[in-house]
Amino acid sequence: LSTDEVHPETAARMVDISGKGVTLREAVAACKVVMSTETRDAIDRKDLKKGDALEIARVAGIMAAKKTSDLIPLCHPIPLTAVDVEPKVVEEGIEVVVTARTSAQTGVEMEALTAAATAALTIYDMVKGIERGVAITDLRLLKKSGGKSGDWSR
Amino acid sequence: LSTDEVHPETAARMVDISGKGVTLREAVAACKVVMSTETRDAIDRKDLKKGDALEIARVAGIMAAKKTSDLIPLCHPIPLTAVDVEPKVVEEGIEVVVTARTSAQTGVEMEALTAAATAALTIYDMVKGIERGVAITDLRLLKKSGGKSGDWSR
Amino acid sequence: LSTDEVHPETAARMVDISGKGVTLREAVAACKVVMSTETRDAIDRKDLKKGDALEIARVAGIMAAKKTSDLIPLCHPIPLTAVDVEPKVVEEGIEVVVTARTSAQTGVEMEALTAAATAALTIYDMVKGIERGVAITDLRLLKKSGGKSGDWSR
Amino acid sequence: LSTDEVHPETAARMVDISGKGVTLREAVAACKVVMSTETRDAIDRKDLKKGDALEIARVAGIMAAKKTSDLIPLCHPIPLTAVDVEPKVVEEGIEVVVTARTSAQTGVEMEALTAAATAALTIYDMVKGIERGVAITDLRLLKKSGGKSGDWSR
Amino acid sequence: LSTDEVHPETAARMVDISGKGVTLREAVAACKVVMSTETRDAIDRKDLKKGDALEIARVAGIMAAKKTSDLIPLCHPIPLTAVDVEPKVVEEGIEVVVTARTSAQTGVEMEALTAAATAALTIYDMVKGIERGVAITDLRLLKKSGGKSGDWSR
Amino acid sequence: LSTDEVHPETAARMVDISGKGVTLREAVAACKVVMSTETRDAIDRKDLKKGDALEIARVAGIMAAKKTSDLIPLCHPIPLTAVDVEPKVVEEGIEVVVTARTSAQTGVEMEALTAAATAALTIYDMVKGIERGVAITDLRLLKKSGGKSGDWSR
Repeated sequence: LSTDEVHPETAARMVDISGKGVTLREAVAACKVVMSTETRDAIDRKDLKKGDALEIARVAGIMAAKKTSDLIPLCHPIPLTAVDVEPKVVEEGIEVVVTARTSAQTGVEMEALTAAATAALTIYDMVKGIERGVAITDLRLLKKSGGKSGDWSR
Repeated sequence: LSTDEVHPETAARMVDISGKGVTLREAVAACKVVMSTETRDAIDRKDLKKGDALEIARVAGIMAAKKTSDLIPLCHPIPLTAVDVEPKVVEEGIEVVVTARTSAQTGVEMEALTAAATAALTIYDMVKGIERGVAITDLRLLKKSGGKSGDWSR
Repeated sequence: LSTDEVHPETAARMVDISGKGVTLREAVAACKVVMSTETRDAIDRKDLKKGDALEIARVAGIMAAKKTSDLIPLCHPIPLTAVDVEPKVVEEGIEVVVTARTSAQTGVEMEALTAAATAALTIYDMVKGIERGVAITDLRLLKKSGGKSGDWSR
Repeated sequence: LSTDEVHPETAARMVDISGKGVTLREAVAACKVVMSTETRDAIDRKDLKKGDALEIARVAGIMAAKKTSDLIPLCHPIPLTAVDVEPKVVEEGIEVVVTARTSAQTGVEMEALTAAATAALTIYDMVKGIERGVAITDLRLLKKSGGKSGDWSR
Repeated sequence: LSTDEVHPETAARMVDISGKGVTLREAVAACKVVMSTETRDAIDRKDLKKGDALEIARVAGIMAAKKTSDLIPLCHPIPLTAVDVEPKVVEEGIEVVVTARTSAQTGVEMEALTAAATAALTIYDMVKGIERGVAITDLRLLKKSGGKSGDWSR
Repeated sequence: LSTDEVHPETAARMVDISGKGVTLREAVAACKVVMSTETRDAIDRKDLKKGDALEIARVAGIMAAKKTSDLIPLCHPIPLTAVDVEPKVVEEGIEVVVTARTSAQTGVEMEALTAAATAALTIYDMVKGIERGVAITDLRLLKKSGGKSGDWSR
């Protein structure tokens, strides 16, 4: 009966945040959706069959931030106090920047990253009918503040 | 009353797939989670405080594929018949390859991409305590088959 | 032991649709969001602090249609093939018209109604900071087609 | 690159409640489900094929209140401390009154309204087999208390 | 790079049902909620502070059946055509019997079991204020039919 | 109009916890998954077609704890601070022990029980291809602490 021991080294376990204090926390994450100039310009001109890609991505990103603990197995549910999703047109396509805030016992970086990823996937979905090869890159944390581990910026 | 007209050009609208046939469809998507060699090796040795990153990412990816139409506003709900999430250790970190299949009136590329993104975010979550600067790149479709638009590969 | 009998008369029970045929079905539902002329015009001019009420309502309505069987206890899950949410500016405020389609063993009227209600509640949420007394009225089915019970229109 | 500016005027944005205090808040919302006397009496006698409409509506309303931030795009998730759904038989059909409470940084009026709408849609679903033309009207806030904006009643 | 190989033996993987035929399938599952005679009688008399335990359990079980593929990681989403949840008063407490049906490429036994478990947990929740030691036992499949593996009964 | 009175005795109603204090609360629940020695040993050797049953059950249990208020109609949403799911090989099959913690106005026993039930159902799902007659028994609370009702242990 080899698995008899409690807590084997490699088993999934949520970090216990019961003893941590509630503090104001913020995280900023970003990613890029890389596409052809033609596709990017069609987004910018709002000239797509399925609607305004950037506006729908914004809504999808905000809604996804609220689902983060449902998607990422070991994430704690936290009461988000603000989520801001900013897609903007750049040279290579669209850049998405997300800011998330909470007053909680743990940070919001997974929420910011999940919102950015979902906004980017939504932009992909809006243009996949005109360009199949769109890619999402550089999904990453830009900075975070609040909590015991202190501030961090890339 | 400027918005009086039905269907303004830029309004969100789901593609109507009512008239499309049910066919077997498959999509393969992939992405990379880029990190230091130390972090990658800790994943490979299963030497992480929160558990086995690759195995938890696999489960998270499969479960996320089933939530795709709940996350991407204009996606149709489809009955997934198979989802396979394969994270593997590579030079730059971890590569995730996802294969999704369905018999439906529309394709599964958003499901494959959403699973890959969520598996990658889960790996990020597993190692963020030891390396803050991990990034997710090259989230993209590798190939798709089935449906009227035919086969495609990158 | 009074509740011993199987299937008491008043117990919740899903209609068994196992024996019904898969047919193309459509439903159209509508409602009105009644408000002051000032609030209606602010929506029409897109002059609101939280964004474009009609566009966000459209996305919220489409996404809610996909959650209908999760909200209404005895609804069957069905594979929606199209959902169209059309908010328009009218004399009393905003009218929302929703068309939903599916190929399934049961109809889509609950999906159309749930989408219309959620789009209307989203419009309420967008303007509640400027007018507290907004009301939602006349949420109703306009017509339906497909299925054994045949076509119906109000 | 016209969308380059951060925060265009009409973009979706969640209100940032990070700086607001946690206070006890309550909201009361209501609506009517208008139907024929025969249908209303069948509900009152619990003489329906699918079960007790009012009791199932009560449960559906309570459960929907907990999903509000998942349905309404810009709503914040809040920890509901009480939800009471009261359907009652009236002259025109069924009236639903919902009271919701929370201790949070923002109010519960959307939760009360969403619960009332879902309870009403559930009643509709329970009787649609015997009367197709049922309508939901007068979905509105009756009163709210708590928070910086103070008390309000219709 | 030890995990380099695709599909390690112990990795999570959904069964691929793409090649299976759509057939009518049924499963019956059951469990018991064991409690004191006093608590059982309070349920039977509907004499509980939070409402009618059996009726609420019925609704909770039906709704949970629809969430099965969201709860059980490797379950496929299937279009349920009927779910019947029957709680009844027995000697040791309450017995719950669930019948689920679908026309799908895979069976409904997980749906029947998930509905039974959730109905039982709901009964527990309804009486935990008066008896803390209630237990749920004998959650098991009673029979199943349809599909390639054929009929089975306990 | 017999249902005219507010709050009939038997109607579903959430307990109002608005006036209760936020305290640290913990609950421990457990259950057994009873199976043949052959099946149990196949789990222990990780020799199953669909993956490592215990590890996937662990992840499913943690994720289900976070969905408790979505499954159990009258449960309040609470911010879980820790969930630990420990499946272990025992004589009759697998025993699952779950510990859940929160700082909230109400307890976490339903979260611990829901996690244990879902972990057990996941183990069932992993082995149902090799043994149809597996049963889940003795799902029960072992102990709880925190809150006004004080500590309790079986």
